[in-house]
Amino acid sequence: MKKADIGLIGLAVMGENLVMNMESKGFTVAVYNRTAEKVTNFVNGRASGKNIIGTYSLEELCANLERPRKVMMMVKAGSAVDQMIEKLIPCLEEGDIIIDGGNSHFPDTIRRTAYVESKGLLYIGTGVSGGEEGALNGPSMMPGGSPAAWPFVKPIFQAICAHVEDGSPCCDWVGENGAGHFVKMVHNGIEYGDMQLICEAYMLMRDYLGMSADEMHRVFAAWNETELDSYLISITRDILAYKDTDGQPIVNKILDTAGQKGTGKWTGIAALDEGVPLTLIGEAVFARCLSAMKEERVEAAKVFPAPAAIAPEDKAAFIEDIRKALYASKIISYAQGYTLMRAAAKTYGWNLNYGGIALMWRGGCIIRSVFLGKIKEAYDANPELTNLLLDPYFADTVKGLTDSWRRVVASAVLSGVPMPAFSSALAYYDGYRSEFLPANLLQAQRDYFGAHTYERLDAERGQFFHTNWTGHGGNTSASTYVV
Amino acid sequence: MKKADIGLIGLAVMGENLVMNMESKGFTVAVYNRTAEKVTNFVNGRASGKNIIGTYSLEELCANLERPRKVMMMVKAGSAVDQMIEKLIPCLEEGDIIIDGGNSHFPDTIRRTAYVESKGLLYIGTGVSGGEEGALNGPSMMPGGSPAAWPFVKPIFQAICAHVEDGSPCCDWVGENGAGHFVKMVHNGIEYGDMQLICEAYMLMRDYLGMSADEMHRVFAAWNETELDSYLISITRDILAYKDTDGQPIVNKILDTAGQKGTGKWTGIAALDEGVPLTLIGEAVFARCLSAMKEERVEAAKVFPAPAAIAPEDKAAFIEDIRKALYASKIISYAQGYTLMRAAAKTYGWNLNYGGIALMWRGGCIIRSVFLGKIKEAYDANPELTNLLLDPYFADTVKGLTDSWRRVVASAVLSGVPMPAFSSALAYYDGYRSEFLPANLLQAQRDYFGAHTYERLDAERGQFFHTNWTGHGGNTSASTYVV
Repeated sequence: MKKADIGLIGLAVMGENLVMNMESKGFTVAVYNRTAEKVTNFVNGRASGKNIIGTYSLEELCANLERPRKVMMMVKAGSAVDQMIEKLIPCLEEGDIIIDGGNSHFPDTIRRTAYVESKGLLYIGTGVSGGEEGALNGPSMMPGGSPAAWPFVKPIFQAICAHVEDGSPCCDWVGENGAGHFVKMVHNGIEYGDMQLICEAYMLMRDYLGMSADEMHRVFAAWNETELDSYLISITRDILAYKDTDGQPIVNKILDTAGQKGTGKWTGIAALDEGVPLTLIGEAVFARCLSAMKEERVEAAKVFPAPAAIAPEDKAAFIEDIRKALYASKIISYAQGYTLMRAAAKTYGWNLNYGGIALMWRGGCIIRSVFLGKIKEAYDANPELTNLLLDPYFADTVKGLTDSWRRVVASAVLSGVPMPAFSSALAYYDGYRSEFLPANLLQAQRDYFGAHTYERLDAERGQFFHTNWTGHGGNTSASTYVV
Repeated sequence: MKKADIGLIGLAVMGENLVMNMESKGFTVAVYNRTAEKVTNFVNGRASGKNIIGTYSLEELCANLERPRKVMMMVKAGSAVDQMIEKLIPCLEEGDIIIDGGNSHFPDTIRRTAYVESKGLLYIGTGVSGGEEGALNGPSMMPGGSPAAWPFVKPIFQAICAHVEDGSPCCDWVGENGAGHFVKMVHNGIEYGDMQLICEAYMLMRDYLGMSADEMHRVFAAWNETELDSYLISITRDILAYKDTDGQPIVNKILDTAGQKGTGKWTGIAALDEGVPLTLIGEAVFARCLSAMKEERVEAAKVFPAPAAIAPEDKAAFIEDIRKALYASKIISYAQGYTLMRAAAKTYGWNLNYGGIALMWRGGCIIRSVFLGKIKEAYDANPELTNLLLDPYFADTVKGLTDSWRRVVASAVLSGVPMPAFSSALAYYDGYRSEFLPANLLQAQRDYFGAHTYERLDAERGQFFHTNWTGHGGNTSASTYVV
């Protein structure tokens, strides 16, 4: 009997769908699940008559694989991955490849790559985005790990992943050890940001303009024909049109408390660790936290009145302003996310292909959009681009959006509609284009109370000065400096 | 010879000053430093003729201490603390107390308390704020650790710490294991926020109102006579008046790139871990990161023009608006910080005294202010206060500030002055007082692409619904729910 091209462990919906996807592309797949019943049900059910081999032990699984063996784990992120790796190692031989397709935290993947390589094996940690449907029909895939493993895995991954119009696969090598899972984490953080931006635009239309779900449905339908064309805008359009059994828009009946998984939080922590201002995603994560405080908000709403809102003179023009403000804020969010990836690449020694990452996100995943094609063009034109905002296309685009953006945020501020992500994005933009921020005062404060020293505009960088502000401070004076 | 009341390890400036402070309050102090020369210089210098005993080994140090021994480490946070603990343990006997007065990260202090207790000793991790001068003349002190250690340490700490007008000490027991260092960390985070708020007010006056350092000096001098009366406002007043050797304001010559130590970052990470929206401090940390990107900002300033600024009709009235906006934003920052402490207290099992914490911060430390007296009153009146904003005094205060606050943020937004902390605080306020946030749409999106389910406004909490949005999704439907 023909041996399998790849083995897959973990037959939950994502795992099953990936197997069906691989098989449909001509690969033979061996499968294993801890609960034997799952394997039997699958091979007698969806997998029946397909090139799918059910196995009932890890030894049997590995015995059914072509060398070098490729074993993909679709198990819960965390200690289950470590345990499975321990069990797999004795079943594998030099050069075989263990693949983790779960949502693992990138430091774990860094550690596991080194560990598995120390055993003479190869390791891949890959982000897989697109949910159940993506797994079946073509996910976005972001693999990193042992570079030597990639040539063996590439034909399978680039066959099963999503593809853009010109046929390019939404999957390419990201980088060493944890790079794939890092990029997947940033993807999820950006997803938090994109969703929050849409929610703020929605809230402004709902509460400031007093629009109905049907009206907003038409707005999002129109927006999806513009630069905002994306999966998340399209599902927002559909959600707003969806009626409950009583004919009323179902969105109005859903409780406004959002859950959060770990990846948005991880992205925020990575930004703090790297010292990269990732303000929009940070605000998006915190906005979910605030939404969860429903009872407190209901109480506070009774205490604190809303300001008198002044409706805009031209409603249609204002809706177009909102669209432009959303687009501008979205550019900021991606600029920040890419800055984080650049910083992490330096920290961890990854040689990231930024255009390639945009292409990977271009299809299959939750943040897929036409916009990502523009980002790919920007990084293809200049792989060393420091900040997306400095790309000529995006610079010109943002310049054309700022008037609308400022009007929208100012209106929200005056009328009491919270837009933390829009506001934060605009503050970042204004900070980024400020040659002279107020941190000179901050440095003076730090030198005043802690003798932390400061640099001067009229001296070379790297010279540090201290002022004896009070006349009774330390021994160092403004005329001395420490390199 | 009389034995010492306490021993201190580490004779850098902070350590020396603490010793001088203790001795001046009538305590005998034994000192030790890794470099023997430091000890000799100190006992022959500043400590000459004082009740200060120089020792040249840890054994000698411990032999000179009254039982139970109290040994305070003033060494660099990190592995140096662990190494010193290992060396101290063999020199100590049951019930002796090791004290860490450095800026340790609270998870380390949790771990060390358990470890030291397992050796039959007691442990205290204490925040010490106020810099060198505070250490000498009365710092704010935030001790946590082994409760059994507190009665022995209390007489010393409450003698050397800062005291408010009525004589109350700015030091009290915070809570078990890492509670003291946690509260110190939040203090530092709030310090980041306070400094950023002052910087934004300064930038608005400098760049939007075109005011000189001398004019701003007078404004801050006046503000320090209002509710804003605080150490940081007072040093800002003094900094703005300080002239360089050429007679020009020195603040105008300082480079606008801020440094950051770890504690602001730690506070942000703790907030993400606890799921508490700590937006203002988060923005303050990120604002420092953005300030560090000086070269990029200089480039970006050439690309992106500032909008045409419209000056306010009444400059004096607008300055008063800024003052009110600063005060409102500051209330939000403390409300967020206290919310974080409440969440952490639940997570780590600490019984925090929130009024007591306000009192500890009332004097001695960098964030000391009249304002903290009001916070103490709020928590004394209601120790279970969920959010500072819901205290009647602060609720009324904020209501009286919102018009000014909105005008200031809107003006900044329209004129291109970045005010991330003011904006973020206002967005939090408007979100907090929103009964209905847009997270209903976000929950619909998550259910659409990931079958994450949602709760409904018309159903009891804890019932989760799923909608088959596309007609070709999973098996669960809107009529089923999973508890």
